[in-house]
Amino acid sequence: MSDIDGRAVAKALREEVGEAAEKLRSEGVTPTLAVVVPTDDEGTAWYVRSIAKTASKVGIDCRIEHLKDPGRGEIVAKLQELSADPAVHGIICQTPLPEGVTLSEVGGYIDPYKDIDGANPHSLGRLAAGLRTWAPATSAAVLELLKREDIELRGTRAVVVGRSTVVGKPAALLLLAESATVTVCHSRTKDLAAVCREADVLVAAVGRAGMIGADFVKRGATVIDVGTNPTEDGGLVGDVDYDAVSPKAGRLTPVPGGVGPVTTMLLLRHTTEAAALTQTHA
Amino acid sequence: MSDIDGRAVAKALREEVGEAAEKLRSEGVTPTLAVVVPTDDEGTAWYVRSIAKTASKVGIDCRIEHLKDPGRGEIVAKLQELSADPAVHGIICQTPLPEGVTLSEVGGYIDPYKDIDGANPHSLGRLAAGLRTWAPATSAAVLELLKREDIELRGTRAVVVGRSTVVGKPAALLLLAESATVTVCHSRTKDLAAVCREADVLVAAVGRAGMIGADFVKRGATVIDVGTNPTEDGGLVGDVDYDAVSPKAGRLTPVPGGVGPVTTMLLLRHTTEAAALTQTHA
Repeated sequence: MSDIDGRAVAKALREEVGEAAEKLRSEGVTPTLAVVVPTDDEGTAWYVRSIAKTASKVGIDCRIEHLKDPGRGEIVAKLQELSADPAVHGIICQTPLPEGVTLSEVGGYIDPYKDIDGANPHSLGRLAAGLRTWAPATSAAVLELLKREDIELRGTRAVVVGRSTVVGKPAALLLLAESATVTVCHSRTKDLAAVCREADVLVAAVGRAGMIGADFVKRGATVIDVGTNPTEDGGLVGDVDYDAVSPKAGRLTPVPGGVGPVTTMLLLRHTTEAAALTQTHA
Repeated sequence: MSDIDGRAVAKALREEVGEAAEKLRSEGVTPTLAVVVPTDDEGTAWYVRSIAKTASKVGIDCRIEHLKDPGRGEIVAKLQELSADPAVHGIICQTPLPEGVTLSEVGGYIDPYKDIDGANPHSLGRLAAGLRTWAPATSAAVLELLKREDIELRGTRAVVVGRSTVVGKPAALLLLAESATVTVCHSRTKDLAAVCREADVLVAAVGRAGMIGADFVKRGATVIDVGTNPTEDGGLVGDVDYDAVSPKAGRLTPVPGGVGPVTTMLLLRHTTEAAALTQTHA
């Protein structure tokens, strides 16, 4: 087995994004990402700071818009304000959201031309219809890793575990667009391990630490671990039982150091793409 | 094996739709469907006349908007005009479209509140995100048949053959929402028959007459045939080889008389729902 090195892929992306940002700046455009943070969740705060830090390194301005105990109306108003602000090119709305508020619903208020994390259902629909759009960055990172590692997708069997709107479903649509035969599994799937063993490419996006064991993996399969489950000692572990799966998988993304860093870089790449669109339209 | 009787399901739906239309009329609203026909295709003309005929029987007005050799601009203008017309509640844009024009792209000009055949990518995205919307009527008909026949979906394996934006993908999303474990196959799928044999519920939406033979079907499986392939003698045949599959399947929809009549009734039901929405909003 060999690890898929997400940090190396992120590094390659960083070069490309840095160049795109520099080009924009030379044209008088400061690529700007706004991150709406409607929660005091500590993990979220840490993640947002890490985005901002990476953004500044590649020449992208990052505005953190922290909302204290917001209701739905306040979140919607902020997303509308940022959508209307010509200085902002990309908008992310972080989760968790207040109870009763869903990302799909408030995401509808993000201008599709700034929806660089594919939170507006409109973007998901365009993805499903094969039209140009930004997929949610995590799902895009899954595909970016597979492509950069030259993993064959066409005609292979891909199994996605998890049917969330932010990862499972868009990842399935992206794999389908690459002509994989795609199966989506979830909590109601019977004999999950057997279904997963059909996979040439297995994408785990469940949110349960170490749930995917060796018996879920066909020998030689490629395994992409989207899970980021916090451990008690402040670390992160994936959905895949790394030690058990590692000897059996052909390729495997570690956590941390797999999907995560690529996701962050794609958010920034999408921001430069959104900024470039305003140039084309001007 | 026993046939699933699409005409009987359509008849039950017709009662319900007729009552909904009557209620709307008693409130002073004439539920109205507009069908844009941008082609001289004979099959399309026949299909549109059959919609109009059925509509009139249930108390729904049907406006047929025939465009002669239209360009993209003319189609878009018509869809915008109908979207803005308060007397129109539901809008369908028929295919085939002129070369270079796609339904996903022009569908974006149909008001989502009138998009009763789910042609606007926005509707598809809402479907994927689990928000209230109208799915494309053919895909909705697949689910309507399965539900009315009390076919268990939760935890079962469903296989959809075909990944079109109008049938395959929305049908897969609807089956996933019912907690089936869903696999989508297509022209690049290897050993298609073997993958199809995994299915408890098999949905054929390929557009190739009789392609699904007995070796594609697990004994006792439910088979929904979405295909409507014209025969030389002016008839219709499905994607499923009926005579071969019939002894092996548990339940099977015939063609004609399966998905087709239910699709038409759902277009009309969606139209009454769209008309009722204008009432709620008024």
